[in-house]
Amino acid sequence: MQLHDNAVHITIRDGHIAGTLISPASRMPGILLVHGWGGNQQQYQALTRELASLRCVCLTFDMSGHAATQARRETVTREDNLADLVAAYDFLAAHPLVDRAAIAVVGSSYGGYLATFLTELRPVAWLALRAPALYRDTQWRMPKQQLRVEQSLAQYRQQTIAASENRALGACAAFRGDVLLVESELDRVVPRAVLVNYRHACLDAHSLTFRTISRADHALSDPGSRGSYATILRRWMEEMITGARLHGRSDVAVEESQPQA
Amino acid sequence: MQLHDNAVHITIRDGHIAGTLISPASRMPGILLVHGWGGNQQQYQALTRELASLRCVCLTFDMSGHAATQARRETVTREDNLADLVAAYDFLAAHPLVDRAAIAVVGSSYGGYLATFLTELRPVAWLALRAPALYRDTQWRMPKQQLRVEQSLAQYRQQTIAASENRALGACAAFRGDVLLVESELDRVVPRAVLVNYRHACLDAHSLTFRTISRADHALSDPGSRGSYATILRRWMEEMITGARLHGRSDVAVEESQPQA
Repeated sequence: MQLHDNAVHITIRDGHIAGTLISPASRMPGILLVHGWGGNQQQYQALTRELASLRCVCLTFDMSGHAATQARRETVTREDNLADLVAAYDFLAAHPLVDRAAIAVVGSSYGGYLATFLTELRPVAWLALRAPALYRDTQWRMPKQQLRVEQSLAQYRQQTIAASENRALGACAAFRGDVLLVESELDRVVPRAVLVNYRHACLDAHSLTFRTISRADHALSDPGSRGSYATILRRWMEEMITGARLHGRSDVAVEESQPQA
Repeated sequence: MQLHDNAVHITIRDGHIAGTLISPASRMPGILLVHGWGGNQQQYQALTRELASLRCVCLTFDMSGHAATQARRETVTREDNLADLVAAYDFLAAHPLVDRAAIAVVGSSYGGYLATFLTELRPVAWLALRAPALYRDTQWRMPKQQLRVEQSLAQYRQQTIAASENRALGACAAFRGDVLLVESELDRVVPRAVLVNYRHACLDAHSLTFRTISRADHALSDPGSRGSYATILRRWMEEMITGARLHGRSDVAVEESQPQA
């Protein structure tokens, strides 16, 4: 544990006495959790509490067009939702307990896609992407709801796409923090080709941890898959935080794994 | 771990989005360490760092008449030194990270004796006394240095003394927090009779943990004895803090032990 060691002077009636105040570092990492399209912050409550137990300040939120702002579902754009992420990040970073040099962003699907852009706009130490979606760069202000058809996404997501050809992948290529990429083995919304594109884009990350959840679908509809994801995310986050607490930065090698249950 | 769970509103360009901020409780216990007559804060550096690692804010200090104020050794009184304790306590309690309902005072010998009075003047949750000394109530403003001879202390410390007959023991009898009493088996300065008086006085404490360090002298001059004391104190403190974190108060039974190495 990092400790602060301060010589202090304690005032007494006729002068002062010397003292030493030793206290644990009070600031802690911040974790921003970003749900996918059609999701909401409720899905992340258990996960968030688990991550907060690692002595982190965690923030979940409902993106515009979801939950209380569901009415805007048909009109909200990627630009709108990225602005949500920035606002949520700034809210978290302004918290007096948060160490601004130790902020993690955790995004699923559409939330993962948007999270990559956040790394270009704000300092992000750790980036966790579960089944990150991929969209064409064009039509940035088109309502997100229309993109699937307008951008022929099913076909686009089977392609090999270089970091230079897509802004989200480009943001990953420029990112120098640590990356966790989690794939669902049976994902039909964000197929393996997309994850391969992300893996290639993350070549210059400080570390890459890639995991596949066996027999999982895109939404992790099976409780066992959700448990696997929680375990993967918690362990990775714990490793990152421990590394940062011990060394100022973690020093983790690239590791890749076979599918796990 | 205690978590705070807050619904928050994050302002965006055209309104706000809902979020949930989950953060670990930021306040932590405070521990005030009080050295004995002729000691100083340096002796407690290692111990203090160990206790701070339990996520506590720790304060050691040099009593008036010691270290930088050594020149006052011959004139300083119990009243002066108790004022030091109160000033140090107030300094610690004012720290923004300190939970004022969870302050421990740890005192050795003369420092333990003075610590008992602090429980009457300030809220103390946990009181740890190692080889606490005992003085007659009289001559409160006489220089401390003269008490040994003036009060025939060697003889006084062999007597059975009731809580009603001594202010320090009376303070213990009135104390409702948790008490740790640590005895040195071969203590010639504060013999067993004094510890027996303290044990009897602590009958109404919320819990009492009594330990004897085998073959230890008053000053714990042997490194092994100092190690034993550090272990006893850390374990007790850990138990108290864990209990308080879990339940708001620990619920520990009275336990007494045989001498331990």
